[in-house]
Amino acid sequence: MAVRTDIEIARAAEKWPIARIGAGLGIPETALIPYGRDKAKVEAAFLASLTDRPMGKLILVTAVSPTPAGEGKTTTTVGLGDALAHIGKKTAICLREASLGPNFGMKGGAAGGGLSQVLPMEDINLHFTGDFHAITAAHNLLSAMIDNHLYWGNALGIDARRVVWRRVMDMNDRALREVVVGLGGASNGFPRETGFDITVASEVMACLCLAEDLADLQERLGRIVVAWRRDKTAVTCRDIGADGAMVVLLKDALQPNLVQTIAHTPAFVHGGPFANIAHGCNSVVATKTALRLADYVVTEAGFGADLGAEKFFDIKCRKAGLQPAVAVIVATVRAMKMHGGVAREDLGREDVGAVRRGCANLGRHIANTRGFGVPVVVAINTFDADTPAELAAIAEHAASLGVTAVRCRHWAEGGPGAAELAQKVVALCDAESRFAPLYPDEMGLFEKIETIAKRIYHAEGVIADKAVLAQLSAWEAAGHGALPICMAKTQYSFSADPELCGAPTGHSIPLREVRLSAGAGFVVAICGEIMTMPGLPRHPAAETIRLDAAGEIAGLF
Amino acid sequence: MAVRTDIEIARAAEKWPIARIGAGLGIPETALIPYGRDKAKVEAAFLASLTDRPMGKLILVTAVSPTPAGEGKTTTTVGLGDALAHIGKKTAICLREASLGPNFGMKGGAAGGGLSQVLPMEDINLHFTGDFHAITAAHNLLSAMIDNHLYWGNALGIDARRVVWRRVMDMNDRALREVVVGLGGASNGFPRETGFDITVASEVMACLCLAEDLADLQERLGRIVVAWRRDKTAVTCRDIGADGAMVVLLKDALQPNLVQTIAHTPAFVHGGPFANIAHGCNSVVATKTALRLADYVVTEAGFGADLGAEKFFDIKCRKAGLQPAVAVIVATVRAMKMHGGVAREDLGREDVGAVRRGCANLGRHIANTRGFGVPVVVAINTFDADTPAELAAIAEHAASLGVTAVRCRHWAEGGPGAAELAQKVVALCDAESRFAPLYPDEMGLFEKIETIAKRIYHAEGVIADKAVLAQLSAWEAAGHGALPICMAKTQYSFSADPELCGAPTGHSIPLREVRLSAGAGFVVAICGEIMTMPGLPRHPAAETIRLDAAGEIAGLF
Repeated sequence: MAVRTDIEIARAAEKWPIARIGAGLGIPETALIPYGRDKAKVEAAFLASLTDRPMGKLILVTAVSPTPAGEGKTTTTVGLGDALAHIGKKTAICLREASLGPNFGMKGGAAGGGLSQVLPMEDINLHFTGDFHAITAAHNLLSAMIDNHLYWGNALGIDARRVVWRRVMDMNDRALREVVVGLGGASNGFPRETGFDITVASEVMACLCLAEDLADLQERLGRIVVAWRRDKTAVTCRDIGADGAMVVLLKDALQPNLVQTIAHTPAFVHGGPFANIAHGCNSVVATKTALRLADYVVTEAGFGADLGAEKFFDIKCRKAGLQPAVAVIVATVRAMKMHGGVAREDLGREDVGAVRRGCANLGRHIANTRGFGVPVVVAINTFDADTPAELAAIAEHAASLGVTAVRCRHWAEGGPGAAELAQKVVALCDAESRFAPLYPDEMGLFEKIETIAKRIYHAEGVIADKAVLAQLSAWEAAGHGALPICMAKTQYSFSADPELCGAPTGHSIPLREVRLSAGAGFVVAICGEIMTMPGLPRHPAAETIRLDAAGEIAGLF
Repeated sequence: MAVRTDIEIARAAEKWPIARIGAGLGIPETALIPYGRDKAKVEAAFLASLTDRPMGKLILVTAVSPTPAGEGKTTTTVGLGDALAHIGKKTAICLREASLGPNFGMKGGAAGGGLSQVLPMEDINLHFTGDFHAITAAHNLLSAMIDNHLYWGNALGIDARRVVWRRVMDMNDRALREVVVGLGGASNGFPRETGFDITVASEVMACLCLAEDLADLQERLGRIVVAWRRDKTAVTCRDIGADGAMVVLLKDALQPNLVQTIAHTPAFVHGGPFANIAHGCNSVVATKTALRLADYVVTEAGFGADLGAEKFFDIKCRKAGLQPAVAVIVATVRAMKMHGGVAREDLGREDVGAVRRGCANLGRHIANTRGFGVPVVVAINTFDADTPAELAAIAEHAASLGVTAVRCRHWAEGGPGAAELAQKVVALCDAESRFAPLYPDEMGLFEKIETIAKRIYHAEGVIADKAVLAQLSAWEAAGHGALPICMAKTQYSFSADPELCGAPTGHSIPLREVRLSAGAGFVVAICGEIMTMPGLPRHPAAETIRLDAAGEIAGLF
C-alpha cells in the first residue's frame, strides 16, 4: 500500500459535527458559535460559568532541540491525547494556532501528521476563525492612533524618536523589518523610523494568550508601553485611548476554538506559535477551559524545552497559576543523530554512535525540565528508518538518567500507537509534581536572563552592551522589575548559534536588544541573530500553492 | 416614546436562523457554511448549479451628491427590499461590506438605519466573515513576493524604481501613505519608496468583486501588473508566481455572505465599499446569485450617482453583462438645502427656496442616470424635521423632469414605509430599460476620462500633465486601451472640489495620477485631492469605542 500524505489522510477522515465533539465535553450546543460545520468558538458566558470547577491534570509535551523538519511535537500532543481517550480517560488537547505567513515560505503545516492530526487542517493552517487577523487589526489600530496623536499636536508629549510600538503583519516580509513612515509632506505626518514584526510576535498576541477574560485583556492592553517622553516617563496604550476599541476588535478572538482530531478527541486550538520569538503557548483561557472540562489535558510548548517549556513554566504557569503534572519530551533518532554530528544528507543511515553522542542534547533537556520539579517521560517518535539499536540507545540513555523512554507509533497508528505512553503519563500524574519556576519574581531582570542562560542554556554568561543593561535598570526603576523574561533565541541550539548542536558548553549568550511588554507582563530578551520578522526563501512555497483541478488546495502541505 | 438608536433597534430585533432565510430563497441548508448562527456563506458548488437559471430584475439604488452624514442609500436599499417583500415579491438585497478601519475614525456604521437594517450589524461592521482580512493577506503576499524576488537576484529584471504594487491595510493610517521599505542593511533587501492604501482600494478587492468564479479570479489576479522593466514591458502577478496562492487565500472570501434584514428579507452582503476611490459595488458573484434566486434584486452603488452609479453601469454592468431595470435616486431635504447653499448648522430650519435651488443637483443626477437608458424614480428619504413645503418642492422639481418622487418612511416604519416606492419600482420594471454604457470600449483612455468629466460631471475639461497623458498612451500601446475607467474623486461635488455644491459648471477636473488595474480590468483616474489611504480625525471614534458593563459594544454606532 502506498503511504498516504498527511493531507490525503486528513481529507479522507470522517469528521463529526462539532456539536457532538462539544457534547462529549459537556459543552451545550447553545454555547458553541459555529464557524463552518467543523469549527466552533466556545462562548464567553459558558466559560465564565465554569470557573468554580476543579481542574484536571495538565500534561506538557515538549522536545529536544529540533531539526529544521521538527520532531513531531504537535503530532505527539495529538497522538497522546488520542491515546488517553483510547484508554478511557476524559481528555482534551490544547494546541497553538498556525501563523499564516510562514505557510507561504517553507512548505509546511501545523496540525500534526499521519493519523495524529487535528481537523480541518487546511482551515487551521489558513484563516481559521480569524483570530490572528483580529490581533493584527487591534495592533495596527494602536499604531495608527499613535501616529495620529503625533499628527494632531502630540498633547501627551511623546518623544517621536522613542515610539517603541511597531506595526505587524501575518506575512514573511523582510522588506518591512525597518521602514520610514510619514513621508510625503505635512499631510502625511512626521517621518520617523519604525518597522513591522510578524503578528505572532505582537504583544497583543501575548496579552490575548495570557488574559483570563475580557476585563483582564483590557487591563493588559491598557498597560502596554507604546512610547517614552523626553523625561523618560512612559506613554501607554490607555493614554492613547486605544484599549477599549482594541478589546472590541478582540472580543471574538478571545473565545477558544474547538475542533477535533481524526479520532474525534476534542482539541482547543487557540493562541500563538513561534516559541522562539514569542512565549509560544496555547492561551490561558483555552487551557483552563480544557482543564475544567476534562480529566487529562495535553498541551504543547514550541520548539525545544530550552525555549517552549522554559517559557511555559516561567511565564504561562507562573502567571496563570497552573500546576503542570508531567512533561513529555519528544525525541527522534534523526534529531539525536544530527546532534551527534551527522550531516543532514546522511541522517537516513544507521549510526548508533552518533545517536549516543546526540543523546547529550536529550539528557540536558531532561535535567532542565526536572529542575522545574515536574516528572518527565521521553516519547520516542519513531520512523520507519529507525533501527532497533538506535532506538535502544535512546532508551538506554534515558534509563541511565532514571527516566522512561517509550517508543511511539501514533503517526502510523493513531492513539493506540501511543497507548503505552499514555499509561506511563497517567502513572506519573499520580506521582507528586512539585512545580516551581526557575527564578523568583524579585530577582533582577538581567540576573533572570543570566539565570536562564546559565541554568537552561548552560552558557558561561550573557554579553550585553551598557545601553541594554541601562535599559533593564531603567525599567526596574520604573516598576517593571518583577516581570519574567521571554527569551527570543534560535530554536536549533542551546546556544544563540544555530550551528552549535548537541549540548554545547563554553558559549556565551549575546543579548542584542530588550523590549518591554508591560501589558503581556514580560521583558523580551532578543539573543543573537533571531528575527522578529521572517523572510521568504528563494523559492517560496507560494509559487506552487494553488487550487487543483478538483478545487482542492495543492502545494501547501 | 423615546426614539431608539439604530443599535438598540438592531439588538432588539428577532433574527431567524440563517438556514430559514436561505430556505426562503431555495438554498438548501447543506449549501450554507455557517459563521455564527446568523451569518453564512453560500457554497461555490451550489452557486455553480444555478448558472442556467433566468435572472430577476436588477434595481439600482443611488443618490444625490451626499452630505457628510450620507443620505440613507443603504437604508433605502434595505427599506425598498423589505417593501418589495412586503407587497409579495420574491426579493433579495445586495449590499457592500463595511470597511473596518473607518469605523475607528468617524462614528458610523454601514448596515442601514432605523427599521431598515441588516443584521447582525455589529459583526457586519467589524470582522464579519473575514473577507477583507483575506483580501489584505492576498494583496500583501504578492507585495512580499515582489520584494523577495528583488532580494534573491531579480531574475525577472524588474526596474526597482517602477514597482507599482503597493501594500494595503484595512485601517485609516496616514503615516503609511508614503514609506521607504527595505532599510537596515543587506539582509532586509533593497530600500525603495512605496506606500500603503486602505484595503478597499486594493486591486485584489476589485478582482474579487468582478470575478465570475474562482477560475476567473485566478485569471484576473494573474494579469495584475505589479512592476515594469527598463524596457517598459510589464511584470505581472503571474510572472511572480503569486496568483495560485492568492486564490487559495481568497477561496472562501469569493463565496457570498447571506444575512437578513430586520424584516427577514435575505441580503447578500459581499464586496467592497468606497465608490470614491474604488468601483464600490456589491460583487458580481453575489448579484448574479441573487438574480438567479429572486425575482427582484435591490442593490446599491456608493455615494452620488456621479460616482457609484456611473461605475456600476460602466464597469460592473458592462463587464458582467448585467441589465439594470430601474434606478432609484435617493434625495433628502437636508442634502437639497445644503446644495442650495445653507450652512450645516442651519440645515434644521425650513428653507424652501434653498431646497428648490439645491434640486439642481438632483436634476443633474436624474439626467445623467437617464442617459444610461435606465428608467428613474426618486426616493425622498424623509426625516421628522422636513416640512410639507420642502418635500413638495423636491417632488415638483422631479415632476418637471417627468420623474416621480416618492416620499419614503422606511427608516421609521420599515418595509411598509416604502411600499409606494416598491409599487412604482415594479411598474417601472415592466417598462423597457434600454441600458447602454456611457462610452464604447474602443474609445481612447483619456477620451473616456474626458467623456465622464464632461457628460457626467459637466466639467469643461480635464487637466493633466504630459506625463499622465504619456502614461495613458503607453498603456494603450501595451494593449490596455479597451479598459473602462474607475474614477477616484471626492463624493461631495460633481467637481473635484468638495466645497462646490449644487450643480457646478465652468470647473475642470485635475487628473493627478493614473493607475493601471489590468487584473480588475480598469484604469483608475485619481482626480484632485482624493486619498487612497484615509487618516483619522483629531478625536477618533476609537477613543470612545469599548465594551460596556453588559459586554455590549458601545461608541461604535
